[in-house]
Amino acid sequence: MNITIWNENYGETHDEEIRATHPEGIHGTLAGFLREIPGSKVRTAVLQDPEAGLPDDILNSTDVLLWWGHIVHHLVPDELVEKIHDRVLRGMGMVVLHSAHHSKIFRRLMGTTCDLRWREGCYARLFNLNPAHPIASGVPENFELGAEECYGEFFDIPAPDDLIFGSWYDSGEIFRSGCAWRRGYGKIFYFQPGHETNRAYYHPVVRRILQNACLWAAPQVFRSVEGSPQLIPTLEEIRAGKE
Amino acid sequence: MNITIWNENYGETHDEEIRATHPEGIHGTLAGFLREIPGSKVRTAVLQDPEAGLPDDILNSTDVLLWWGHIVHHLVPDELVEKIHDRVLRGMGMVVLHSAHHSKIFRRLMGTTCDLRWREGCYARLFNLNPAHPIASGVPENFELGAEECYGEFFDIPAPDDLIFGSWYDSGEIFRSGCAWRRGYGKIFYFQPGHETNRAYYHPVVRRILQNACLWAAPQVFRSVEGSPQLIPTLEEIRAGKE
Amino acid sequence: MNITIWNENYGETHDEEIRATHPEGIHGTLAGFLREIPGSKVRTAVLQDPEAGLPDDILNSTDVLLWWGHIVHHLVPDELVEKIHDRVLRGMGMVVLHSAHHSKIFRRLMGTTCDLRWREGCYARLFNLNPAHPIASGVPENFELGAEECYGEFFDIPAPDDLIFGSWYDSGEIFRSGCAWRRGYGKIFYFQPGHETNRAYYHPVVRRILQNACLWAAPQVFRSVEGSPQLIPTLEEIRAGKE
Amino acid sequence: MNITIWNENYGETHDEEIRATHPEGIHGTLAGFLREIPGSKVRTAVLQDPEAGLPDDILNSTDVLLWWGHIVHHLVPDELVEKIHDRVLRGMGMVVLHSAHHSKIFRRLMGTTCDLRWREGCYARLFNLNPAHPIASGVPENFELGAEECYGEFFDIPAPDDLIFGSWYDSGEIFRSGCAWRRGYGKIFYFQPGHETNRAYYHPVVRRILQNACLWAAPQVFRSVEGSPQLIPTLEEIRAGKE
Repeated sequence: MNITIWNENYGETHDEEIRATHPEGIHGTLAGFLREIPGSKVRTAVLQDPEAGLPDDILNSTDVLLWWGHIVHHLVPDELVEKIHDRVLRGMGMVVLHSAHHSKIFRRLMGTTCDLRWREGCYARLFNLNPAHPIASGVPENFELGAEECYGEFFDIPAPDDLIFGSWYDSGEIFRSGCAWRRGYGKIFYFQPGHETNRAYYHPVVRRILQNACLWAAPQVFRSVEGSPQLIPTLEEIRAGKE
Repeated sequence: MNITIWNENYGETHDEEIRATHPEGIHGTLAGFLREIPGSKVRTAVLQDPEAGLPDDILNSTDVLLWWGHIVHHLVPDELVEKIHDRVLRGMGMVVLHSAHHSKIFRRLMGTTCDLRWREGCYARLFNLNPAHPIASGVPENFELGAEECYGEFFDIPAPDDLIFGSWYDSGEIFRSGCAWRRGYGKIFYFQPGHETNRAYYHPVVRRILQNACLWAAPQVFRSVEGSPQLIPTLEEIRAGKE
Repeated sequence: MNITIWNENYGETHDEEIRATHPEGIHGTLAGFLREIPGSKVRTAVLQDPEAGLPDDILNSTDVLLWWGHIVHHLVPDELVEKIHDRVLRGMGMVVLHSAHHSKIFRRLMGTTCDLRWREGCYARLFNLNPAHPIASGVPENFELGAEECYGEFFDIPAPDDLIFGSWYDSGEIFRSGCAWRRGYGKIFYFQPGHETNRAYYHPVVRRILQNACLWAAPQVFRSVEGSPQLIPTLEEIRAGKE
Repeated sequence: MNITIWNENYGETHDEEIRATHPEGIHGTLAGFLREIPGSKVRTAVLQDPEAGLPDDILNSTDVLLWWGHIVHHLVPDELVEKIHDRVLRGMGMVVLHSAHHSKIFRRLMGTTCDLRWREGCYARLFNLNPAHPIASGVPENFELGAEECYGEFFDIPAPDDLIFGSWYDSGEIFRSGCAWRRGYGKIFYFQPGHETNRAYYHPVVRRILQNACLWAAPQVFRSVEGSPQLIPTLEEIRAGKE
């Protein structure tokens, strides 16, 4: 399984606190524990790389793409967004993290604004709403995430195919914080934790969830058809041996 | 629309505080504002009535049945539960309230334990997760419910067809507090608020939600077939005029 | 309820058979029976009208928009598609008909290719898979549609929130032919029948379904917020009277 | 993974044609290819065995239970049905086959009648409606099943969490033939093919689907709690070190 972690890599290069939290960038923090998945091959890519980090050869050899972005969503080229969108519909898995709820690619896949409410400096708990889901494997009924930015409802997304986690914040909000969808042949998981100055990606349960998500999102098969396919033979044609 | 409100009517007759909160019983409090639905005809029934309050003529003329129970679920006759179950599958709407999550009829319809966590003496907020749903009509993005018993996840229910409301409690819990399902030809809505010593049913938004729920759950048609029906004609039979 | 029927109006002006089937255009045929909805005000719009038929004053006073297109999807201006998309997310209902599965606006809302298989000259039956759904009100368990273009699976759409109708074709295909979704504050219904040379829109059950769909899709409320809203007050702020 | 295949084993002992189709019983035919799953340990059980084939030690060591029944559903003891039901809710996977749609355990789990239409002597095709689902792994967009009993809609089940396969029959029917649900901690898959005198279970794609289904339904964890659990600590208790 080829995992590619994409990060806008802006905060890490402009903010001392973020750099202190993620010395090798958020992509580096993520890569550290995703490499523990047996059989995985993990690459990282950042916006500042050539072709915004995702030239065709990288994108087209990626099975699961993780996406972290926040402030510079608008700098991701529209043409690249269309390429990623096409690859997800053909089977590539995608894990969308935290403030990437407003990324071009997530909004493109969802077809909605993906707006939400937010407030910094909160305390969060997560609840497991779907204990039989593969992404919840090994996750307890609930766990203390600790310091995290609060995201609040109404979260303007299509109803998830699977609602897996819900969050409670001490500021008085709830959030559908772990949501899964199928789009075309691809699978998408959105996960709320991951504010750049907090340490969610160091939490063992969060790490387990993201490892599970990569395994779940891995494609079974890539769709190869171009455009609207022809019909299969009619029964009469089959019976007449005209296949 | 014939609405029947069923109540176990136990607390009201054994506890001064509950009687003070609901001088005419919880069924009486509910009836007060459900009668405001244009075209509704509201009846109340309690466990202490003959045939546990639901003789055939009442059940069979009910379009929407509301159910409040808590301590004496076990006193509802199994035979009655089967009759209600059958009528829901044929089209009757059902609104299941608060501690009736553990009623025989709700567990029968859901096929799960309907277990949950709970704690008294909390403060609750509700969030509107599905603003286009008819049951959310006129409901703001969120509202302060105030004092309410806390119910917490994991709530052991089938994934709702429509998740409409979510609750936040100051004790540190979240809950899927407004859930809708179709079963057979009938519609079912579960709504969490309604602890017997709290005043949820006096809250204007709660009243609006329960009025909406009755309108939404009203049957379109009752299923009349008995057992597994025969097949429709084959195309060849239609073509041969053998209908 | 303000209903606007949009039609690309191409076949009617280029093909004798289509004109014979729909003397006043497909929009005219649809308007004829949608005007029967009590309280409805029905307008029609075609691609050849100024501003592609949907200047702001018409779009912004539309509660439910029906869309029929087939050959000239590409002539609908992208800017108009974005305006319609925005209005759906704010609450406008949308009924997408037949070959409009490939319209820009439907693909934009779904986030998928909306590809399918197809074959002309078939015979179709429809099955009611969700008899308690408002759009299925008055619809029998199944009905003979008769001559209709066949659409076949795999239909590349997000899993519907509600799957309401399924089609059988004598050519050996099945199709999820009546599907409903919520996006933002708006509701969307896709319905397969309606090939331009067939007479589906003269079928009494089809007419009932489309009338139901308009009533179902009518907005409850329009979302007025711009961008990501602020958070609601924290509980501490409420307690401190800082609302 | 411990797989147990339960079969009522009635037709095989009363009908020459069924015995000819399944010389070792339907359970034997199924066991033959389920043993190919790496890491699986397959047992068979029949109604005629002591304790209807499922004494506690067998049931309680089963990870995935397959169920085939048709004519003698009523002979399965109610007490056993409750035990199976409880184990599914705690995590055991269940694969329900063909005419077992009317088995006590399936109706118990679904909470509906599970009625459907039927006709013998038909020809069936299956369509893959959910190509990214693990149960559809390796399954083409559609395939010819061949001779099979027709099951027709309306199939009185709760809306599936995942609709994976749909069937087309030459008699003019469609059917939601591959449906998945979660109930409690357990996963359930219903699959239509498998009429006792037809050869569906010799079809390579059907075999692949049932192998996939066992892998998918395998429990991640078993729920151990008894009754309604206590609440987790409040935030104040956590902060006060009272965990």
